Amino acid sequence: MEVLAIDIGGTKIYCAKVNEHGKIVDEVKKYKTPQNKQEFETLLKEVIASYENSVIGVAISTAGAVSNENDRIIGSTGNMFKEYPTINFKSLTKLPVFVENDANSAAWAEYKIGASINTTVSVMLTLGTGVGGGIIINNRLLKGKSGAAGEMHFKMSMDKHRKCTCGSYDCFEAYASGTGLKVTAQEMSGNPNITTYDVVGGLQNNDKKMLEIFNRWEEDITDGVIGLANIFDPDVVVLSGSMAEYVDTEKIEKNVNSQIVTTPIKVRKATAGNYAGMIGAGLLALEAWRGEG
Amino acid sequence: MEVLAIDIGGTKIYCAKVNEHGKIVDEVKKYKTPQNKQEFETLLKEVIASYENSVIGVAISTAGAVSNENDRIIGSTGNMFKEYPTINFKSLTKLPVFVENDANSAAWAEYKIGASINTTVSVMLTLGTGVGGGIIINNRLLKGKSGAAGEMHFKMSMDKHRKCTCGSYDCFEAYASGTGLKVTAQEMSGNPNITTYDVVGGLQNNDKKMLEIFNRWEEDITDGVIGLANIFDPDVVVLSGSMAEYVDTEKIEKNVNSQIVTTPIKVRKATAGNYAGMIGAGLLALEAWRGEG
Repeated sequence: MEVLAIDIGGTKIYCAKVNEHGKIVDEVKKYKTPQNKQEFETLLKEVIASYENSVIGVAISTAGAVSNENDRIIGSTGNMFKEYPTINFKSLTKLPVFVENDANSAAWAEYKIGASINTTVSVMLTLGTGVGGGIIINNRLLKGKSGAAGEMHFKMSMDKHRKCTCGSYDCFEAYASGTGLKVTAQEMSGNPNITTYDVVGGLQNNDKKMLEIFNRWEEDITDGVIGLANIFDPDVVVLSGSMAEYVDTEKIEKNVNSQIVTTPIKVRKATAGNYAGMIGAGLLALEAWRGEG
Repeated sequence: MEVLAIDIGGTKIYCAKVNEHGKIVDEVKKYKTPQNKQEFETLLKEVIASYENSVIGVAISTAGAVSNENDRIIGSTGNMFKEYPTINFKSLTKLPVFVENDANSAAWAEYKIGASINTTVSVMLTLGTGVGGGIIINNRLLKGKSGAAGEMHFKMSMDKHRKCTCGSYDCFEAYASGTGLKVTAQEMSGNPNITTYDVVGGLQNNDKKMLEIFNRWEEDITDGVIGLANIFDPDVVVLSGSMAEYVDTEKIEKNVNSQIVTTPIKVRKATAGNYAGMIGAGLLALEAWRGEG
């Protein structure tokens, strides 16, 4: 039983067949994300058509919040073309289509085959250019009233210190993301041209200033995880995304557990791999279709 | 079908019979909370015994986090005597006993007969001496792995500016509570003896400084609700507790909705009344016993 899983991001689209065990069973294909609706629909139709005879449906992991009916994008999606929320995914094929947000999909992959297997409550934070969130409670994704839950825009300061991409100020995302690390580095070094690469590279050379900047970034992540631990009392907080590899999860876990009022949590790195979004969407789709059938 | 509902707080214990419609059906009785385990157990046994022939069970709404089995306190409980977590509630009577945290119980009352009826996701904040939290998702209380979820200790600042009762710094509770308002008033007025009554009284006299202090407190609440709205995408955030009556929920709702990335939420005052904890615990108990039967 295999599904075509498609991961749609702002710059790249990946696709591959995923089976019911959460394994990718053929070669992953990669495309540039078209920047207008017509080209996007044409590409997706072609891609899906080429798999149509060998899969039972299409599972899409996408940037942007996805409706509770798992069929459409709600609200605007930063890195995608403007009309993206108007895409009718179900019109692209006769196969069943299931859509879920990429951070939610990746969190589900961790829950089924990765770092949060057998947990009651898990929170996944995707630390990349931004910060994504996926929360699973009692075997179910937290979706909220409209499907948009899990946004990591809670404030770390009341001082309107740092503008966030969301339009407000001082959100966790504005500090804990890769972009956040860059801004922290700029503030702490006084160098407007410093990058996350400079910081991460400096760590390897034991550069004292870069270490100080990186530690501050880890403290900001720690502060955010403390709040999430007190709110959700999770078994585990999973860190994924391109920036997660640099993080000292043992240190964060220890510092979080010394400050929370709930019971101790685990902090772990994601283990489901780079294609967790596709895997999670595939597994969610199979569950949804089973439920309907 | 009636249950004996008991509300256990740090200074007072209330009890009354509650029916399956969430109505209190007899006179509410009030006791001083004993300050040691033996006196506490003796009082509770006596109270329960006097109702034993007219109720089908005992529902307890209590300060402190309550286990997922709804039978015991987990962790320490600030305002209660030290041995409180060792109380074996089921040993106090032969009737079935159901225990839930007071903020969770009150949130359930709002969900069943109050301000959050017919919602998919609701967050209740109890603004009193501290801040309590009760979150309901898909017809179920968010309890977390151990039962301690819903603690409103997420950080509002990274500067270790204000010590919180939890031992950490700058939690939402340290700002949004009545105590938080007092500290904010002390900081903004420079008067170490100013109280929440001075601020609230000043509002009625149109005192400019008191209004400024109060607005700042409402802004802090707004900042916290923004984070909760982005994390949970709730239908409604309900404000309850002794401090909620002063809050301008329309203003907060408007300011929250202008800053969140999820879909608009409602901000409402609680309507289930002062005995919401007893009512909610009673209704939860009846559901639990039905489920078991």
